[in-house]
Amino acid sequence: MTPIDVSGRVTGIADGLAALDGGRGVDAILVSDLTNIGWLTGFSGSNGWVIVKPDELVLVTDGRYGAQAERQLDTSGAGSGLPTRIEVGSSGAQMLALVGAALGGVGRLAFESAHVSHQQFVSYSEQFAVTLVATVGVIEQGRRRKTPAEIERIEHACGIADQALADVASSIVAGVTEEQVRNVLEIRMRELGASGPSYETIVAAGPVNAPLPHHRPTSTPLEVGHTVVIDVGALFDGYHSDMTRTFVIGQPTVLQQQVYDVVLAAQCAGVAAVHPGVVARDLDTVCRGLIADAGFGPWFSHGTGHGVGLLIHEDPFVNASSEVELQVGDVVTVEPGVYRGDFGGVRVEDLVEVTSTGCRVLTRSPKDSLCLPLPRTN
Amino acid sequence: MTPIDVSGRVTGIADGLAALDGGRGVDAILVSDLTNIGWLTGFSGSNGWVIVKPDELVLVTDGRYGAQAERQLDTSGAGSGLPTRIEVGSSGAQMLALVGAALGGVGRLAFESAHVSHQQFVSYSEQFAVTLVATVGVIEQGRRRKTPAEIERIEHACGIADQALADVASSIVAGVTEEQVRNVLEIRMRELGASGPSYETIVAAGPVNAPLPHHRPTSTPLEVGHTVVIDVGALFDGYHSDMTRTFVIGQPTVLQQQVYDVVLAAQCAGVAAVHPGVVARDLDTVCRGLIADAGFGPWFSHGTGHGVGLLIHEDPFVNASSEVELQVGDVVTVEPGVYRGDFGGVRVEDLVEVTSTGCRVLTRSPKDSLCLPLPRTN
Repeated sequence: MTPIDVSGRVTGIADGLAALDGGRGVDAILVSDLTNIGWLTGFSGSNGWVIVKPDELVLVTDGRYGAQAERQLDTSGAGSGLPTRIEVGSSGAQMLALVGAALGGVGRLAFESAHVSHQQFVSYSEQFAVTLVATVGVIEQGRRRKTPAEIERIEHACGIADQALADVASSIVAGVTEEQVRNVLEIRMRELGASGPSYETIVAAGPVNAPLPHHRPTSTPLEVGHTVVIDVGALFDGYHSDMTRTFVIGQPTVLQQQVYDVVLAAQCAGVAAVHPGVVARDLDTVCRGLIADAGFGPWFSHGTGHGVGLLIHEDPFVNASSEVELQVGDVVTVEPGVYRGDFGGVRVEDLVEVTSTGCRVLTRSPKDSLCLPLPRTN
Repeated sequence: MTPIDVSGRVTGIADGLAALDGGRGVDAILVSDLTNIGWLTGFSGSNGWVIVKPDELVLVTDGRYGAQAERQLDTSGAGSGLPTRIEVGSSGAQMLALVGAALGGVGRLAFESAHVSHQQFVSYSEQFAVTLVATVGVIEQGRRRKTPAEIERIEHACGIADQALADVASSIVAGVTEEQVRNVLEIRMRELGASGPSYETIVAAGPVNAPLPHHRPTSTPLEVGHTVVIDVGALFDGYHSDMTRTFVIGQPTVLQQQVYDVVLAAQCAGVAAVHPGVVARDLDTVCRGLIADAGFGPWFSHGTGHGVGLLIHEDPFVNASSEVELQVGDVVTVEPGVYRGDFGGVRVEDLVEVTSTGCRVLTRSPKDSLCLPLPRTN
């Protein structure tokens, strides 16, 4: 697999400092979100801050991660493109002081307004002799456009979930509980090389549970006549996948088949509408319109999709109020659903990569039928 | 298993509103942390706010969780002790407006300073016609003291991890990779009833990886002479467990045995020092002092422990600067360690419940030897 190359990310941020805050510019940015820190530097610890100045990067972490940081960051600057220092504090207070010390010469400091708690903000205000400048999405903007090496990992994660679903399909039968289906799927994904599930697998069966879009699996057994919504993804080398398929145990009713056909048509139309430049709100309208036309509008109770990468939910979000334009390198879900107690729940979800000509679907489990897929032979 | 009874939690918070902000009091509290919301109400969705007033509770969530909330919250008020309303918004902006509408009659509103982002705080300031009062730890204070039903779940989670480690011990041998050990442990915990691992299992082997306290498992194979640090816990019905054991593949060197004896003695002394009223800093000193006396002080690079419950890391934290007093119902880890490239890494960790007479150890895997435990026969 192509190695993830973080070089250029730090210098990209450093070069952009002068343009932040509506062009007024800042002298440095304090990055506190750990996913952003990981993307920027390759550091995978669970505690740390990064300061990016035009000519230096400083990582502040605690004693659990000092040796790890020395390995993950190239302090020569050859990797990140900037001379890099690592500072290790033995307490939260000491770490904050180390951040303060690293801010020497900084007048205007950008911080991540969406990731810094009010309490931390008050600490910054009290302890840093700088002008604090709230920013939103500076690093996320870079994270949105996935590189080929990142797509490779996401696609591999999708393939693991596809294979796992095919491998365990024959055990998804009446009498098995939602929890058991979750377990066999998550265990099979591990066996296939996932470092874990991308999120807790959703298995939602029947008229009581399937109408809950984010139901947590219970000891409810599957029964003939149940719709079963299975929302499953794998985590592979830090990257997530996301897919939903809906099945019926036994033969679908006329209503179940009708709802499925509507949702599938809406989902396929959504996928077909993905291309660079499409406004997320308009993509949402494509799916929502078809479902509303069929009379099921009130029961499509969530947005159409979201970005996927180092997080399972990230920019760009696709819903009725999202005005963002999709761009090449976005990886987003398309996942309309309809939920109602009289037939259960139906959701169909694929993960797609936005390409110059439209999109490429990364999740490949069959979706043409409400019947469970046949086990693969390979 | 005894059901979790959330009744009394909401009324406890409602009754305490008048005493918040140093006795100045508030008219309501806005709870935004999802773990706190779950503890308070039983709601398990991934998006929501709760407003607690002296005479009413309002939950605001999105369309994915409306039906779920109706089931999880007793809107008659018989469960929470307060009349309860559920409001469902279709976007973040609409949810914020619903929160604003629920604040009618509120003059002073407490919010969770440690859990509200700076960006959210700015939204609150702009959109709520109230005086915002920053508070820290209001709900966490209640969450700290575990009830017998909560201890039952944590102890069950500990038992799953104990059993899983015993069951897979015979497969922890030279040639097997860190990732493979993680996988068999996490799969076995699932089979034993865990809903997942409590955190990504740490398997850190040899002079390169074992010195990293929070190493992520890699494809590094175990070799004869390696110390192997295994930090493993189970998640059961929302509650976490946490335990670390260290083994040597083959026979330990004199230095490995010496370090192990020191760490084990420090850990046992720490457990023996746990009782209601002990100051966390003093407990840290017990472990740290024994390790320093043996000459390994600089290589004990983290705190001694932390609380465990609905989160894997929560109050109270046990480190050199923590002045909190332990109390009956606290569940905390005791986990000193020593990490150095010339022998590897050694950590021993138990999870204990603070009782009126001292503590009760909830993790029961053998720790008297650097040898791997024999498989259990039951």
